[in-house]
This record gives sequence, structure tokens and C-alpha cells, in this order.
Amino acid sequence: MHCTAVLGAAQAASTAALLQARLLGMARRAMATSLLCVPPPQVLLRPLAVPERLLLGPGPSNVPPRILAAGSQQLLGHMHPEVLQVMDEIKAGIQYAFQTRNRLTLAISGTGHCAMEAALLNLLDRDDTALVAVNGIWGQRAADIARRLGANVHELLKPPGPGAAQALGALHHPRRVFHRGAAATGGAGRALPPPWLPAACGCGGIARGSPHLHGPAGEKMLRRKTKPLSFYLDMSLLANYWGCDGELRRYHHTAPINSFFSLREGLAMLAELGLENSWERHQANCIQLCQGLCDLGLELFVKEEKARLPTVTTVRVPEGYDWKEITAFLMDNYSIEIAGGLGPSVGKVLRIGLMGCNSTSGNVDRVLCALRDALRHCRHSRL
Amino acid sequence: MHCTAVLGAAQAASTAALLQARLLGMARRAMATSLLCVPPPQVLLRPLAVPERLLLGPGPSNVPPRILAAGSQQLLGHMHPEVLQVMDEIKAGIQYAFQTRNRLTLAISGTGHCAMEAALLNLLDRDDTALVAVNGIWGQRAADIARRLGANVHELLKPPGPGAAQALGALHHPRRVFHRGAAATGGAGRALPPPWLPAACGCGGIARGSPHLHGPAGEKMLRRKTKPLSFYLDMSLLANYWGCDGELRRYHHTAPINSFFSLREGLAMLAELGLENSWERHQANCIQLCQGLCDLGLELFVKEEKARLPTVTTVRVPEGYDWKEITAFLMDNYSIEIAGGLGPSVGKVLRIGLMGCNSTSGNVDRVLCALRDALRHCRHSRL
Repeated sequence: MHCTAVLGAAQAASTAALLQARLLGMARRAMATSLLCVPPPQVLLRPLAVPERLLLGPGPSNVPPRILAAGSQQLLGHMHPEVLQVMDEIKAGIQYAFQTRNRLTLAISGTGHCAMEAALLNLLDRDDTALVAVNGIWGQRAADIARRLGANVHELLKPPGPGAAQALGALHHPRRVFHRGAAATGGAGRALPPPWLPAACGCGGIARGSPHLHGPAGEKMLRRKTKPLSFYLDMSLLANYWGCDGELRRYHHTAPINSFFSLREGLAMLAELGLENSWERHQANCIQLCQGLCDLGLELFVKEEKARLPTVTTVRVPEGYDWKEITAFLMDNYSIEIAGGLGPSVGKVLRIGLMGCNSTSGNVDRVLCALRDALRHCRHSRL
Repeated sequence: MHCTAVLGAAQAASTAALLQARLLGMARRAMATSLLCVPPPQVLLRPLAVPERLLLGPGPSNVPPRILAAGSQQLLGHMHPEVLQVMDEIKAGIQYAFQTRNRLTLAISGTGHCAMEAALLNLLDRDDTALVAVNGIWGQRAADIARRLGANVHELLKPPGPGAAQALGALHHPRRVFHRGAAATGGAGRALPPPWLPAACGCGGIARGSPHLHGPAGEKMLRRKTKPLSFYLDMSLLANYWGCDGELRRYHHTAPINSFFSLREGLAMLAELGLENSWERHQANCIQLCQGLCDLGLELFVKEEKARLPTVTTVRVPEGYDWKEITAFLMDNYSIEIAGGLGPSVGKVLRIGLMGCNSTSGNVDRVLCALRDALRHCRHSRL
């Protein structure tokens, strides 16, 4: 028997219906005897309970009620004119948020990780050479993804100063270069000098994953000669569905309409507030947090002030403490989430995020107060 | 210059922050002159308006308020114990819905199309031979996806009777066989005889995309020797995050928590109602619809009663009518969506879906009444 598997991948509704038809037929033959071998799970008969938390990790963050309300509106069809209009508004909002007029601006129907993969698989061809700057887990993952795609990957393992990156780029003649704009695990972001940033900039995860690709890379994606390895993430097909190519918009996939509504509202809130006001608020609250952390005797992980992210602040785990006890204390006693490091920075740092509606002076006070309490009550080997 | 692109794929928050830091720095140097080249889009300053519609196409369908409310709960972290518990409940719910006890049961963080791609890319290796039964757009797409993945694809173009499929399977010795359980575009579902169904069954799109893979195919995915082409959809990594492999659950991607809440509630409603009750309700309303359509003088597309889906009913476009005028009439005058065909069936059929909370006797009456009116008022070349 050479046929080891029959695979039917389909909308669940119709597949369930097929199962239903099959089982109903069997049930009729069995004179109405139930053929269910799996009973209704008891865990699903209890109500869903979602506790209230202040999410001050590197993400996810708390979502403003307006965005949650938009996402709970009744569905429309994925080709209805109102939805296409919402998609146009999302494009305009992303263009505003990222200050670009590039026509290839769209959101990916997946998480931020999906958007990162979409960017790589549309840029890379098999046997391409890719240079990946690895300074944390995201660089590691980008290198992993590029290898899966069949690229020859060169890793730049040092934190990439512009000079080093350009030198290595010249050395390896890469077809593509990956540099993650800001190290989520280290809390430092350093801009590469033009024309390196943004020659192309793939940004996953506005609300729920949205790449925005412009400059030569975006155009390159639309002009590539081979099909990318994925239909779902094929940028030329997505560009058509998102109305980026000036052609008649065709069905590509059944899009997550509620997420579109939510994303649209998030971008609308940003447009109403204004980018500069948003930047200033994040900057001011970050400065207040950094000052407060120093006052607690904690050491900021990123020394250079200008290199610090205004959204995620990274602090060294204080000497003698177990980072897990600190994060658990905040969660158990204050319902506040802060995070440890990830990948190479695990065990070394704590990460505190102040993003979107969570970036308030009041939240800075709350997390500082909770941290002060944690330092008093958590076990520590010295002091 | 060999480096044509710099690609930074990242969570938007930190990338936006990087842009912010860069522009703020520039703004300071420019003495507080705004450097925004893209102003806030005026379209985003208008409120979001979502009209009320009865979605009786092949999907999306209307969503019960309870599911919408669950999706609008405040977020939790993707590794919080409550979320892991919800994921366990989703697994139990999917196992109930599909009557399986297979350990590799999980939901994909993407749409139904994403789940279909996940199934194919985890099953197929480069240069594998794949047999794809093509009887509509989904078969066409599966063949396209398999080719992108580097498989040698053989297409079975006739509507696949079991004998023909098995004969071709023996002929081609395929490593994998794709058969979409039910033709969404044709409204017919025919089970392949055991052991063909379900040797493996990948079902995308419960709520928002959930593959459920069991039998030899699921085990095969977890034991494959090469890495699949995608990190995001790597079944062994997903199986770990979903707690299917008995190992410590590790971070894989930042999951769509709201969608998990919604999916959990949908499955809870199914558990409360009971599978058999749900089947019976869908069957009864489908029969009422088919009878009503015949009474209107319309011709059902699927002749054999047992081969009809209880969720999507397909009817021939009546002679002399333009299908687009009929669907537009229902939308404009009744705010009811029904759909035309897709791919090979476009122009030939109308598709009427009665799924989930939309499967009610009242909705059957509404759509029949609207159709009767449409047949009276739409242009027709004869009669």
C-alpha cells in the first residue's frame, strides 16, 4: 500500500458536514443508536472566565475598549464593499503610522510571526544568499526561516553596528539582508544609516500582524519571476486582494473580518491622537519609568539613552534575585505582567512594556510600586 | 551595490518605536519642525459603520453574540495558565466536533486557507509525488500549493468516485493524496470509503482556521526527518505549544488570544447543544430549503439527495437570469447575502449557506421569500 495518507483540507463547516452525513447515514442504519465515541467535554460546560490583568510585558498589551468593541461587531463578507473600504482605511492608517506612501502596504491575516515569514518568503528565492544580523531570538528565527526556504544564510553574530553590517554585506554579496529593527529581547533599537533603513521594512504585528513593505524590496516582491513557496502569503496575490496593484480585486482567502475592524479602529485612534502626540507620550512615560527604576537601585540594560526603546524598557535582574520570583510576585500580588528575557537574554533581564493605552503615568507608578514591593519580599541571596 | 534590500521583520510596536526614535531625533535637530510627510488619513476620522446583514453564503456566516462577546474580552498573555487552559478546552472541543481522540489536535493561528497550507506543507517533502483530486477551486489550489512546495503533482480531474481515486492512487504510487471532503463550490460531499477517509483529515476553519489531523498522517508529521518549509506552521513546534507532545510547552508565536476565546465559546455552544442535535437541525433546515427551492421552480445542482451538504445548498442559476442580478437584488432589498459559484462553477450556480446560528427555519423562510421576489423583479431573457 503506497498511499499512506488521504488529506482533505477544507473549511471546517463543510468537512464537519461531511462527517455528519457519514455518521448520520451510519446512525440511520444502526437504528438511531448514537455513534458518538467522544462525549461532550465537561470542561466546555463551565463558563469562560477571563481575569483582569495589566499586561506590561513586551506584548500582548491591554487593548482599548473601543478596539475590542469594533472586533465584536457582527461579520460582513470578505468581498463586501464596506470591508474593502475598511481595508483601504487600514492601508491609509498603516501608511500614516509608518510614514510611507508605498503602494505595497497591507496587513497579513496572521500573527506578527506570520508577517515576518511572509516578508522573508516573498523576498528570498531558493539558493539566494541571505545575511542575517543575529542579536537575539528574532535574528535566530529569521536565520532558521531563511534556511527552511533554501537560502544560504550567513549570520552576523555581533550586535550590528552600521559599519560592520555594511562591511559584511560587501563581503558576502548577499541577495538579501535581514536586520531586525529593534531587539525585542534586549530593548535596544538602532537605526542603520540610509540607504539601509528603510530600503525595505517588514513590520509584523500592528494589532495582529501587518507587514508593510516599501522601496525596492516591495517592488521586487511584485516583480519576482518564481512563485513564492506559499499561496497564502504570496505577496502578489495579497497585493491584488488589498487593492495595491490597481487591478480588479479578486478573492484570495476568507479574511478575518473582525480583526480588520479592530485594526482599523486602532489606526483610527492613532490618527485622532496624532503620531507626534503618541510618540511624545510614550517617550515621557518611558523616561519616568527609567528614572523610577534607577531610583529603585536597578540597572538599565541599555546604557545609551538614545538607543532605548520608548515602548519596552529592559532592566538587569538585580543581583541575588531569581527573575521568575519577581515576575510571579507581580502577577500574584498585583495582577501585573512583566516579562523575563527571551532566547539569549533569558535569565539576564526583565522587560517592562508601556505600549498604546498602557503607556500612562499611572501605570508607571503601579509597576514601580509593585517592583519595590517585590524587591522587599522576594528571596535574595545577598543584601 | 549587491545589497538590494534591508529587511527588518518585527513586532510593529518596536519597529514603530524605532521609527519614532529616528524621527524624533531628526525632529529635535530640525528644531521641532514636524517631519511627517503623510498626514492623518481623513477616512479614519469617520466612525466605523457596520451594516446588519444576514450572511447566507458559503461563509462567513453570522456569529452568535456569545462568541462575539468572548472575542471582545480583555487580553491575557499567550503563556498565561488561563490561556493554556483555554487551548486545552479548544482541543477537547475539536476532538468532540470531529469525533477523534488523536493527540495531534490543535488550531492554526490563521484563516482556513492557512490551515490547508499547514496540512500540505507538513505532509509533503520536496520531490514527493502528490495525487490531488480536483473537482473545484480548492482542489486547484491544493495542486498549486503542492507544486510550490516542490512536489510532483498528479491531478485527478474527474469528480472522484472511490474506485477511480484508488485506481489512480495505485497507478501513481503517490506519497500523499489530497481529497477535499466536500466541494464548497459544488455543494456536494462524498465520503471516500475506508481506509481512505479519514486516514488523515485536515480541516481548516472552525471559527478561524483549525486543522485537526489524525491517524497516520498526524503521526507522520511529528516524525518527519526534514524541517517543513515554514517555521510558523511547523506542526512539531505547534504540537509542543498546544501541549500535544507531552513536553513542556514553549513559546512559539504570540497567539491570537481573542480568537482563542471566540473559538472556545463556539465549541462550548456545540458541546451544550450536542452534535446530534446540531446535525438534525442543519439537516431539517436544509430539507426545508431544498423543498422551498423546488417549489420556486429552481433546480438543485446536486441530484443525489445523500450527496448534498446540509450546510450549503447549491442551485442552478435559473435559465435566462444573470446570477449577479439575483445576488445583488437580495443584498440591496433584503440585506441577505447568497453567493454565486467560485472557480469552475462560477456563473452556473447560486450557493445558499445555513450554518451554525444561521440554520433556522425562519432564515429559510426569509431567503425563499427574497428569492421569489428576485425571480419576479430581475431581468430574464425568457419566461
